[in-house]
Amino acid sequence: MRFPPNLNQVIIGGKIVDLNTPRYTPVGIMIAEFRLSHVSSQEEVGIQRKIEFELAAIAMADMAEKIVRMGPGSHVELTGFMTKKNRLSNQLVLHVSDARII
Amino acid sequence: MRFPPNLNQVIIGGKIVDLNTPRYTPVGIMIAEFRLSHVSSQEEVGIQRKIEFELAAIAMADMAEKIVRMGPGSHVELTGFMTKKNRLSNQLVLHVSDARII
Repeated sequence: MRFPPNLNQVIIGGKIVDLNTPRYTPVGIMIAEFRLSHVSSQEEVGIQRKIEFELAAIAMADMAEKIVRMGPGSHVELTGFMTKKNRLSNQLVLHVSDARII
Repeated sequence: MRFPPNLNQVIIGGKIVDLNTPRYTPVGIMIAEFRLSHVSSQEEVGIQRKIEFELAAIAMADMAEKIVRMGPGSHVELTGFMTKKNRLSNQLVLHVSDARII
């Protein structure tokens, strides 16, 4: 069975916080883990509500280098897909496939 | 300060599970809470990986009625924005702004 590849897409803005020192996989791929501090205003049932949360995020290879260059405190728009943090947890993590300064 | 309204968008496919009996706000707005069981295949660093998790979701008013009509077990594509479940928790919930059967 083939899964539809594009039905897990997140586009979210926020500030890079808690950017850890990058680590490397055994084959030398850079991994940058951080959190995205998100604040926005969204409409629901005609009411504008303020949204505020932190989202765990992970970037690999070129994207990890890009996030590290942007650095903590940068306001960015991230595109990516969600996974859970690990097999046992149901905490969500955004895997970054694109990032740009906003 | 105005926040950019569109920088918190999720598009995700999956199966409606754990659909609770709808509840109503004091002013009579229907609320449907459920979980989206998501399975997909996403590429990262050239590797195709299988993604599998459950995402808490909430739909209000017309969208709640739509989800209830679709019913548990339906395969859907949801569009919406993320919030945290409540002020004290960092668990994420998808607020559904659109839903269609896939």
